[in-house]
Amino acid sequence: MNKYIDLDFAKLDIDRIKRRGYCEAVFCECKSNDQLLNIFRSFKEAGSNVLGTRASKEQAQILMEKFADLVQYDETSKTLTLIQNEIEKIGEIAICTAGTGDVPVAEEAARTAQFYGSNVKRYYDIGVAGIHRLFDKLEEIKKANVIVAVAGMEGALASVIAGLVDIPVIALPTSVGYGTGFKGLSALLTMLNSCAEGITVVNIDNGYNAGYSAGQINRLIEGKK
Amino acid sequence: MNKYIDLDFAKLDIDRIKRRGYCEAVFCECKSNDQLLNIFRSFKEAGSNVLGTRASKEQAQILMEKFADLVQYDETSKTLTLIQNEIEKIGEIAICTAGTGDVPVAEEAARTAQFYGSNVKRYYDIGVAGIHRLFDKLEEIKKANVIVAVAGMEGALASVIAGLVDIPVIALPTSVGYGTGFKGLSALLTMLNSCAEGITVVNIDNGYNAGYSAGQINRLIEGKK
Amino acid sequence: MNKYIDLDFAKLDIDRIKRRGYCEAVFCECKSNDQLLNIFRSFKEAGSNVLGTRASKEQAQILMEKFADLVQYDETSKTLTLIQNEIEKIGEIAICTAGTGDVPVAEEAARTAQFYGSNVKRYYDIGVAGIHRLFDKLEEIKKANVIVAVAGMEGALASVIAGLVDIPVIALPTSVGYGTGFKGLSALLTMLNSCAEGITVVNIDNGYNAGYSAGQINRLIEGKK
Amino acid sequence: MNKYIDLDFAKLDIDRIKRRGYCEAVFCECKSNDQLLNIFRSFKEAGSNVLGTRASKEQAQILMEKFADLVQYDETSKTLTLIQNEIEKIGEIAICTAGTGDVPVAEEAARTAQFYGSNVKRYYDIGVAGIHRLFDKLEEIKKANVIVAVAGMEGALASVIAGLVDIPVIALPTSVGYGTGFKGLSALLTMLNSCAEGITVVNIDNGYNAGYSAGQINRLIEGKK
Amino acid sequence: MNKYIDLDFAKLDIDRIKRRGYCEAVFCECKSNDQLLNIFRSFKEAGSNVLGTRASKEQAQILMEKFADLVQYDETSKTLTLIQNEIEKIGEIAICTAGTGDVPVAEEAARTAQFYGSNVKRYYDIGVAGIHRLFDKLEEIKKANVIVAVAGMEGALASVIAGLVDIPVIALPTSVGYGTGFKGLSALLTMLNSCAEGITVVNIDNGYNAGYSAGQINRLIEGKK
Amino acid sequence: MNKYIDLDFAKLDIDRIKRRGYCEAVFCECKSNDQLLNIFRSFKEAGSNVLGTRASKEQAQILMEKFADLVQYDETSKTLTLIQNEIEKIGEIAICTAGTGDVPVAEEAARTAQFYGSNVKRYYDIGVAGIHRLFDKLEEIKKANVIVAVAGMEGALASVIAGLVDIPVIALPTSVGYGTGFKGLSALLTMLNSCAEGITVVNIDNGYNAGYSAGQINRLIEGKK
Amino acid sequence: MNKYIDLDFAKLDIDRIKRRGYCEAVFCECKSNDQLLNIFRSFKEAGSNVLGTRASKEQAQILMEKFADLVQYDETSKTLTLIQNEIEKIGEIAICTAGTGDVPVAEEAARTAQFYGSNVKRYYDIGVAGIHRLFDKLEEIKKANVIVAVAGMEGALASVIAGLVDIPVIALPTSVGYGTGFKGLSALLTMLNSCAEGITVVNIDNGYNAGYSAGQINRLIEGKK
Amino acid sequence: MNKYIDLDFAKLDIDRIKRRGYCEAVFCECKSNDQLLNIFRSFKEAGSNVLGTRASKEQAQILMEKFADLVQYDETSKTLTLIQNEIEKIGEIAICTAGTGDVPVAEEAARTAQFYGSNVKRYYDIGVAGIHRLFDKLEEIKKANVIVAVAGMEGALASVIAGLVDIPVIALPTSVGYGTGFKGLSALLTMLNSCAEGITVVNIDNGYNAGYSAGQINRLIEGKK
Repeated sequence: MNKYIDLDFAKLDIDRIKRRGYCEAVFCECKSNDQLLNIFRSFKEAGSNVLGTRASKEQAQILMEKFADLVQYDETSKTLTLIQNEIEKIGEIAICTAGTGDVPVAEEAARTAQFYGSNVKRYYDIGVAGIHRLFDKLEEIKKANVIVAVAGMEGALASVIAGLVDIPVIALPTSVGYGTGFKGLSALLTMLNSCAEGITVVNIDNGYNAGYSAGQINRLIEGKK
Repeated sequence: MNKYIDLDFAKLDIDRIKRRGYCEAVFCECKSNDQLLNIFRSFKEAGSNVLGTRASKEQAQILMEKFADLVQYDETSKTLTLIQNEIEKIGEIAICTAGTGDVPVAEEAARTAQFYGSNVKRYYDIGVAGIHRLFDKLEEIKKANVIVAVAGMEGALASVIAGLVDIPVIALPTSVGYGTGFKGLSALLTMLNSCAEGITVVNIDNGYNAGYSAGQINRLIEGKK
Repeated sequence: MNKYIDLDFAKLDIDRIKRRGYCEAVFCECKSNDQLLNIFRSFKEAGSNVLGTRASKEQAQILMEKFADLVQYDETSKTLTLIQNEIEKIGEIAICTAGTGDVPVAEEAARTAQFYGSNVKRYYDIGVAGIHRLFDKLEEIKKANVIVAVAGMEGALASVIAGLVDIPVIALPTSVGYGTGFKGLSALLTMLNSCAEGITVVNIDNGYNAGYSAGQINRLIEGKK
Repeated sequence: MNKYIDLDFAKLDIDRIKRRGYCEAVFCECKSNDQLLNIFRSFKEAGSNVLGTRASKEQAQILMEKFADLVQYDETSKTLTLIQNEIEKIGEIAICTAGTGDVPVAEEAARTAQFYGSNVKRYYDIGVAGIHRLFDKLEEIKKANVIVAVAGMEGALASVIAGLVDIPVIALPTSVGYGTGFKGLSALLTMLNSCAEGITVVNIDNGYNAGYSAGQINRLIEGKK
Repeated sequence: MNKYIDLDFAKLDIDRIKRRGYCEAVFCECKSNDQLLNIFRSFKEAGSNVLGTRASKEQAQILMEKFADLVQYDETSKTLTLIQNEIEKIGEIAICTAGTGDVPVAEEAARTAQFYGSNVKRYYDIGVAGIHRLFDKLEEIKKANVIVAVAGMEGALASVIAGLVDIPVIALPTSVGYGTGFKGLSALLTMLNSCAEGITVVNIDNGYNAGYSAGQINRLIEGKK
Repeated sequence: MNKYIDLDFAKLDIDRIKRRGYCEAVFCECKSNDQLLNIFRSFKEAGSNVLGTRASKEQAQILMEKFADLVQYDETSKTLTLIQNEIEKIGEIAICTAGTGDVPVAEEAARTAQFYGSNVKRYYDIGVAGIHRLFDKLEEIKKANVIVAVAGMEGALASVIAGLVDIPVIALPTSVGYGTGFKGLSALLTMLNSCAEGITVVNIDNGYNAGYSAGQINRLIEGKK
Repeated sequence: MNKYIDLDFAKLDIDRIKRRGYCEAVFCECKSNDQLLNIFRSFKEAGSNVLGTRASKEQAQILMEKFADLVQYDETSKTLTLIQNEIEKIGEIAICTAGTGDVPVAEEAARTAQFYGSNVKRYYDIGVAGIHRLFDKLEEIKKANVIVAVAGMEGALASVIAGLVDIPVIALPTSVGYGTGFKGLSALLTMLNSCAEGITVVNIDNGYNAGYSAGQINRLIEGKK
Repeated sequence: MNKYIDLDFAKLDIDRIKRRGYCEAVFCECKSNDQLLNIFRSFKEAGSNVLGTRASKEQAQILMEKFADLVQYDETSKTLTLIQNEIEKIGEIAICTAGTGDVPVAEEAARTAQFYGSNVKRYYDIGVAGIHRLFDKLEEIKKANVIVAVAGMEGALASVIAGLVDIPVIALPTSVGYGTGFKGLSALLTMLNSCAEGITVVNIDNGYNAGYSAGQINRLIEGKK
């Protein structure tokens, strides 16, 4: 039987390291301050690391007051970490963005991948409108085990990269854009319909899952879970 | 006062060469055989050239029987022409497709542009999944006055081309693809949301309007309407 | 090899005048104040002109404090310019709006076209609900090399104009309207499905690309890039 | 209590002339031949007129064999009529189409209006791509009590007409078009978002309801129901 | 030639009473205070009545300060009127709402109809969830020349009313509701697909056009424009 | 451990009567003839009853040849039954349709409910366009334990019924209609947004689930599973 | 004849207990403070219980000041109750949520069911990402008469539960999620397309109708309305 | 410089093994018979293996006549292979389907993965409606390097599996279903919005890309490209 801590409003999966090979992440967006404090306290007591995503500045301050140096907050990616056990990072993931506006989502992916034990290299603002910027970095990008291609607007970056490399590309659409960008839908459809193979896609703005999935593949290639 | 021939079910714009600078085109798809014969006969008698689009093979046969050598049909593009006055072709339009499936729509654009007096060069199956095929042809493509970029699926070709040239790109989405391609919607959205400037877009599978618009711009650049 | 300035979060394309024939524009909306200052400083030092679009009043104030008279802001169109080299304007573009609410988007198009070296004439509030207003201006409009037709709601202006002229019409849908206007989708679909030829379309509210594309065509017709 | 004939699979509203002022119409599309024969026989015996819409040629033949001269079929509009009481027609409705492809839907509207006692004048193929065709007929169109504006593709005809007249315009979108016409959706949205007042809209391809509603208004203006 | 006042950003149609039989309305939502003052001043000087729709409380206060008692504001419907010539009201329009939340849109319709010279009777909160409330009022409703049926959520009110009367029903969907109500889309679709005839539909929340169209029909039935 | 028969391409749940209280149904639409024969043979040998839904006439003939009188087919509802154990029917479900076109889907619901042991009464063609037909049957309908309201087009029937009764209403939208009916979407949205309580909804044309769910509730009310 | 109190802007259905077996609920969201006070005063005087849904904190305070202890407010579910007659609760409903973010909608369902006389057990945060949490509670959940399965994001909880039990499952999608969650649309579609039978669905975030419908079925199973 | 064979209508990427590590696949659906013969002949001469997807039975027969035993066709998956060099298969991919109807798409994935050098195990018809079927196979499934989860309708299978394993899950939505399944859209949204991490998604019915991507990851984990 799997173990979890039952907080009534939430069931915390402390047994997860055994079952899935990874520790837990908390989606902070629709949690109250009390709920968040309760959850972090429980993990603190269980001696586990925790990653919080989509955390507001206010939520971060409350947790940092309570847990002091154990908790770190990154404002760009809105991620929170409580680290009690050192994280060994292996392999390499390349995270590429089409534009500057895609950086917050890319950072959520990057920090998630790092939290789960992968090295990350960042290549930002190399979209297809000035394709020479991508070609400049291509040889370096190809050395990674996995690529995360982050783009809003028309999202063509993933297709172009996948046509040039022979490693898995995880396409991460962002809600950057306006009008018929439809808050990321245009980028998502581009990525799903790519004529280049080897692209798989995650939800719009879901940097967490892109980073998690890239990390999982990277570690398996390196021979570890 | 403008003149037209009133056939009751249709009003034929024979005065159009004066008013708009171009002669008429006929959308054949929802015309009956009798209507089509009537329309072509009227233009024949008026001494005008005519272009028919989306014509079925059966429609073509009926007209070719009636008007013999004056009428020509191209099965790939489903275009019909009745030519009574020689067409002088000037300038150059580059028509590029991402894949082989986009060729019928590209041919509708090409033949429309030719009918309205432009030279056309074709660059087919140069999509971004194998981007070196595009780079091979790039210098040649850049010599045109206007580019028509034809693509279904994720439609990234237009963005990539527009990032590399400094001439107008007319993006022509096709319904090639399946699933979330949504019959061309994915390609259309990509093209509308391109991060490269200088792209304007026409309706899905509307080779006629892409060819017409490209021809109009090409001729104006060459100093003629 | 193309040159660009690598600011880490952004790669500035200072070599663009050679490659594409035009200098750079900056989409300000999702840039931080620091990023924006960095970007403008780099272009300043490189001796280049810059156009900023979708800039907030607050962003404008910060840049105007820093660069004083070199930077100008237009509140209606939310465009910023840093001008170090005089711009010669040639040819003529007619920018027409259906209503008063479409003016901000039209102004973005107008100022973009001017920045890239085209003359612009404005014809505002001449929509089809009172079509005599359009006919009053028609002869004047026809003198332009290119027309930009700006409309929200049902967006019929582009169709009606294109039926009356023999020059390219770039249709620019706006998000003006409510209910089934779906933030510009209705106008966009109208423009894509026009029964008049010679219309090509840009993204909803994308005054920048409409102005850029119209300017590019206008300059090519005038024999310059 | 209202009366109706209960056929088990259908309940026929023979009392409707008293209750609503009009006799019944039958939507033939998803009726079996037996059901249709039963329904028409019941109305025949009740001495009522009937209108059948969306009737196939095969359905028409079966009914014409059975009821001989009493039943008439129009192939273009796919309408069937069984007439036992003479219909007096009053007033005038103008039915205008943008193109030739819209004629079948326009004819369903026209024949429905005639069946319910209105005179109809037809103005076909006067769409906005060649707006002089509309202006030619305008004075005549203005003499009607109600206008039905029938259009597919971008559907701009209704807006333009409503801006020029001071009588009610019923806008009838058709599924003519392709790509982003989305089977009439583009025309429907145009009509709903018209910047001209006095337009009300019916379902795509619903010639029956457009004709019925126009007829109802026409007769009320003439002082009769 | 039609006359209008050219304010540069707007062209005011003062000749409209002659051309269309009605005076002008102003959509206030995207006008600046200065633009609004200019527009109202022009109509004031021309001696015309004006109706303003979607006016904010702040806009109303500025105009009421300027034009004192001539301008009246109704907060529920957000309509403004400047009345210089007395309005004679004739005939009768029944305006029915399904719920209490639909009242603001219904009031925009009611006040528009009154401004254009029709009498209005209101029947609010008589939706189909408690259908006896509708039946209570039915005989009274039937005395009108036209019915406006206003409903959000599932919008079934229009269908049920149209099945019970023999006068025109203008269906006015509202954005009341949540989830799959999709801001009025559900109500709109219900109304467009009604199985009862004699319903025509306007845009979501477009009380202005519903009131205008109902008034136009009502006045024509009463023998006046 | 639950038992099932593993046919490789399918896993048959013969243990389901114990686990869920009901025997199995087979969705025939995308099964090959061989697969279907295999599946029915397995249930035959296990001594179980089976219901097949969406079976083509051809599929039915193949099974009837093989299993003779044990298998029965109903062409309207496209349901197949193999009955080896007598079915006792209890309680009562009222199945109501708005129109004649909704009958095939209603019959799938009716026959599913009967197969799972409920009595069914049918009330067809009682839609809101002629609401007196519904009121005629209302007292009888109220005697059921559960109502299934089946409607396409605008789907208002469910709302009206639920406002008049105090028993559960399962709303079953059908794809009957055209244009903006969007193959049942309009009816579905109407049903989900009903202002009357006590309505729950199933998928478009899913007579099977409506019948199953109604039967389950009916049997629980009667005190049996 | 049914009785109701006519407040002009609202018609209160005090006779409803007789007609439908249940007393009234008030949707507070688009009511003014005055309207709400009027409505609650009328029910108070009629001696009826009332449930208010989607009430803001401010609305609650105004009513609690006026009616003191008779009115209770729950902030999580935004429900208000005015209780004058004791409510007897019978049977059992299991309300399950996938996550913590779904709790507010679940609480609206729970409190509605309780108001209408049903016992409720809550099972929160048992979504399919850690399916052992569901299995832990399964035997207990199966004892209910009805299950309400509340989930946002991908909404798979309802399918999984329905595959494991033989009692009715009412699926309640929530707007929890982002990107392609489309404010609950993804969860709704999942629930409508479930491959497990016995699931019926309500509108996104409509806890009120889910609680009402579950309560109605629960009470009927217990032999009471 | 990369090499390819230029067939005019197609550019064949024979150099791809070097560049991307994999040989070519051909999307047969919109190729003419002549085009297909030309393409296969070119690869045949170049000594390369080829995979054809979405090939019709007729296309297969033509190729098998020409190339005899070299070409093999699988009717379920519609895949064609021309094998000239033996394929060594390594590692293991688990391909799971929710139902029997998903098998053709699953087979396209399976055969693609095999063509590109991976071993495949199949687990068909183990959807969540009978979740014990999944649990029966779980230990075996967990031994794979990658899982492909194939499902139409509500597509919950991917979420449930991903919650139980710690290896990458590629979710492959199929167009199996009807009504609000919207040809696979419902399954796609479910998969994109999964609350379980480690799921990435491909286009609806795109078995080819799912198999390709799974194979790529599998081979990298095994230490080979």
